[in-house]
Amino acid sequence: MKKMLLPVLIFFFPVCLLAQNKSAKQKPVSRPNIILFLVDDMGWMDTSLPFYDTIMPLNKRYHTPNMERLAKEGVKFTSAYAQPVCTPTRVSLLTGMNSSRTHVTNWTSPTKNNNSDARDDQFEPLNWNINGLSTDPATEHTVNATPFPKILKDAGYYTIHIGKAHWGSMGTPGSSPYNLGFMVDIAGHAAGHPQSYLSEQHYGNMPGKAQAQAVPDLEEYYDTGTFLTEALTLEAIKAIQTPIDRNEPFYLNMAHYAVHEPIMPDKRFVQKYYDAKIDSTEAKYASMLEGMDKSLGDIMDYLKKRDIDKNTIIIFMSDNGGFDLRGGKPNTHNTPLKAGKGSVYEGGIREPMIVKWPGITKAGSINKNQVIIDDFFPSILEMAGVKQPKILQKLDGQSFVPLLKKSSIVATERPLIFHYPNKWVNKPAIEHLGINYYSAILLGHWKLLYHMRNCQFELYNINNDIREENNLADKNPEEVKRLAVLLGKTLKERGAQMPVESSSGKQVPFPDELVK
Amino acid sequence: MKKMLLPVLIFFFPVCLLAQNKSAKQKPVSRPNIILFLVDDMGWMDTSLPFYDTIMPLNKRYHTPNMERLAKEGVKFTSAYAQPVCTPTRVSLLTGMNSSRTHVTNWTSPTKNNNSDARDDQFEPLNWNINGLSTDPATEHTVNATPFPKILKDAGYYTIHIGKAHWGSMGTPGSSPYNLGFMVDIAGHAAGHPQSYLSEQHYGNMPGKAQAQAVPDLEEYYDTGTFLTEALTLEAIKAIQTPIDRNEPFYLNMAHYAVHEPIMPDKRFVQKYYDAKIDSTEAKYASMLEGMDKSLGDIMDYLKKRDIDKNTIIIFMSDNGGFDLRGGKPNTHNTPLKAGKGSVYEGGIREPMIVKWPGITKAGSINKNQVIIDDFFPSILEMAGVKQPKILQKLDGQSFVPLLKKSSIVATERPLIFHYPNKWVNKPAIEHLGINYYSAILLGHWKLLYHMRNCQFELYNINNDIREENNLADKNPEEVKRLAVLLGKTLKERGAQMPVESSSGKQVPFPDELVK
Repeated sequence: MKKMLLPVLIFFFPVCLLAQNKSAKQKPVSRPNIILFLVDDMGWMDTSLPFYDTIMPLNKRYHTPNMERLAKEGVKFTSAYAQPVCTPTRVSLLTGMNSSRTHVTNWTSPTKNNNSDARDDQFEPLNWNINGLSTDPATEHTVNATPFPKILKDAGYYTIHIGKAHWGSMGTPGSSPYNLGFMVDIAGHAAGHPQSYLSEQHYGNMPGKAQAQAVPDLEEYYDTGTFLTEALTLEAIKAIQTPIDRNEPFYLNMAHYAVHEPIMPDKRFVQKYYDAKIDSTEAKYASMLEGMDKSLGDIMDYLKKRDIDKNTIIIFMSDNGGFDLRGGKPNTHNTPLKAGKGSVYEGGIREPMIVKWPGITKAGSINKNQVIIDDFFPSILEMAGVKQPKILQKLDGQSFVPLLKKSSIVATERPLIFHYPNKWVNKPAIEHLGINYYSAILLGHWKLLYHMRNCQFELYNINNDIREENNLADKNPEEVKRLAVLLGKTLKERGAQMPVESSSGKQVPFPDELVK
Repeated sequence: MKKMLLPVLIFFFPVCLLAQNKSAKQKPVSRPNIILFLVDDMGWMDTSLPFYDTIMPLNKRYHTPNMERLAKEGVKFTSAYAQPVCTPTRVSLLTGMNSSRTHVTNWTSPTKNNNSDARDDQFEPLNWNINGLSTDPATEHTVNATPFPKILKDAGYYTIHIGKAHWGSMGTPGSSPYNLGFMVDIAGHAAGHPQSYLSEQHYGNMPGKAQAQAVPDLEEYYDTGTFLTEALTLEAIKAIQTPIDRNEPFYLNMAHYAVHEPIMPDKRFVQKYYDAKIDSTEAKYASMLEGMDKSLGDIMDYLKKRDIDKNTIIIFMSDNGGFDLRGGKPNTHNTPLKAGKGSVYEGGIREPMIVKWPGITKAGSINKNQVIIDDFFPSILEMAGVKQPKILQKLDGQSFVPLLKKSSIVATERPLIFHYPNKWVNKPAIEHLGINYYSAILLGHWKLLYHMRNCQFELYNINNDIREENNLADKNPEEVKRLAVLLGKTLKERGAQMPVESSSGKQVPFPDELVK
């Protein structure tokens, strides 16, 4: 074949070379690179970039100039959602399925076959997919699906995971990003947080002290004073050099451990927060946020330096609401949103999200359409130009790419589901905050909460009551009915699980069954 | 450009497709894949494949059918050499420099800036490159060089490291294979052996017990009963799927932790060795060897299954001589070779080596030419078709590819240097076994040993005295002189280090200075 083409090619050769050189400089790959910058446990208010229409005190406390920069260059989504805790969101991200369908509704334990649900007097432990995501149908207690990184890899993308993984328990395939379609994995493990952010503590890997949370792969940063967030950034920049040098499109899953507990001071930034005389834990937390933001800036700078910024999509997202028991006054950390991580109130599920797609998104724009983590799977594949991939699962998400392409679109209303038939923490005093055994549905401005513990509904109009203070359930029985039916129907369609009462052995009724 | 070529390409399109399909099946890449199957601490006798011209008892004890199979399909090198311990060999492998030049003459501690030399009454601690190999000139106590995996990666190879790394101390770039040109690293760390081979012990990663030797990245095999060797094999097979699927040539550094201590039973094979009533440690060791051999077979089978075996080069090698204090009678484990790991006698440096290059090597042939680990760098680059790469270092090795292409070649004599100005173990009783403060030169059948402790020479004709029993130094002063001059000259040219006496502050004379 080569021989046959040779005479023709020789004729064009000088032109080819010229064209190649030019394109190598200006546009190294025709398909865009995609970076998902995923922060852990970051709340809607944990930034100097306001996502609410009023600037709040925390927006003034924190310094995230690079988020501001990204928003200025891209589009800010003010109604982006995820599930109330980590693994459910991460599994939905990789599979495009809602957690009501994956049955991964709580965080997975690093230990295999270990149900992380807290014990409860009323309900039996739920038989959810306690080992998380797996690509092998033979793995017990897992959801089987085709993760999008695998599809991207098969389509020629160089797929990189850096940082927190937490997709499956140790001893199952999902514990390793390599099994989920990533070609490079640095620092991912089966646990939900790092043992330490400090190089002096070897990120947890101290002889005799290492636990499942000890962060792997970062030996070269031990005792160098490098905060974990910075080490991951340096590794990410190193990792993307390969596809850039090789002129291949890449997908980078830049999944920071920050700003999850343990809250530790990032020395580069903490002093000014100490000086501000705020609560010391909050000062440390602020330094972690600023370190995370610097990571975003450093990556953006590197893209520019390599002249690929114009061909690289950046998506900024968090995996659940801000943890609101960290320091200072409890349950105020996401105000005006109610509650925080673990809750189906807005504070637990509403996320800071930004998308920059050079040439596509409108710089500095704001998009108020509702999107959910389930949408990332079809969106990212559409960005990469992958059409109708062969997948095992049924998708719940839908691509938000049309919203990027035309900023004026108002998307058709569709139900967003938040399903948590599990017990996150054994703290009865905070269950009224939307935590433990809740399901919720969002449809336009209406939001219905269903508390499985007592079969009660709450109804809010989040458009004029974002704080979820005025329960309209009694006033609007028809709306409750409509949403309860839709929630119940959707949950059943997806095969969702409900808790079972220990005393009676009966399953909690689906919400639609209560309003017939 | 695309537009200009389009009409021409369309014309050829159906033919192109046909040719592609055909080639994808028969010859997925034009450049060969290269697998280095590197075993740790494996001696010349640790196999049922005889490298000596007589079958020895240990050849009958061990079962390595896949090494036999590889030798049957390729060429067996019976005079292949490495350095007496691990890191010096591994650094020479990656850089093509002899350890006399790298100043990495002992094993690197996982802890940075920690000299692993044992204390000595006569000599000061040697100021060698105690942190190993680095690609960053700013890293203290390291040798700077361009590792060949980086060159292969830049040339379009997909470069994979699986298993033992041990190229540099924690906190330095060399601790991570990612910094040495590998695009994938699974299970590599800065230590010289695994904490455990057992999945039940999480390969060392038990809470509160993990040390620097705990093997990373294998969470999914915890508590599955998978022996470390098997886990690494499964990971290797998984890792090469990516380049195979993407039709890219790959380099696989399949670097087993086996058969280094801790000696642990591979349950799949150990019973028959227990039943043979041999020493129990030796039985376990035999099971580790057979597990290693199965790995080789499994990889060969997989290449065949994917129909790329005909385009894949396999190089089998060990990194130093067999450890001969493991079980049973000491210092007999490499017989007829004298001594073992740590020694410059043949038992410490002579290695089992096999090369299969389909279409190039002659099946079932034997090559008696001397080759050394320094030669792997230029050989592997030549195999990959890389010409005159830009490198930082001066090479000592020379390509053995001509020996593969023409099996009848008798190579020109050249000096091979083994330089160990360090103290490996604090056991004066075994220093007569060529261990601690020795240099040696091999030139054809002549071998000169230089003991720095007492400035004594030993001379052997290894062609008719492979056991190194008849010291001919007194009988052949001219030969001693010739070799001492050549050894001294070569060491000086390479800037080699010599120990310094504590009492006098004087450096041990180079060997040529003693025969003037």
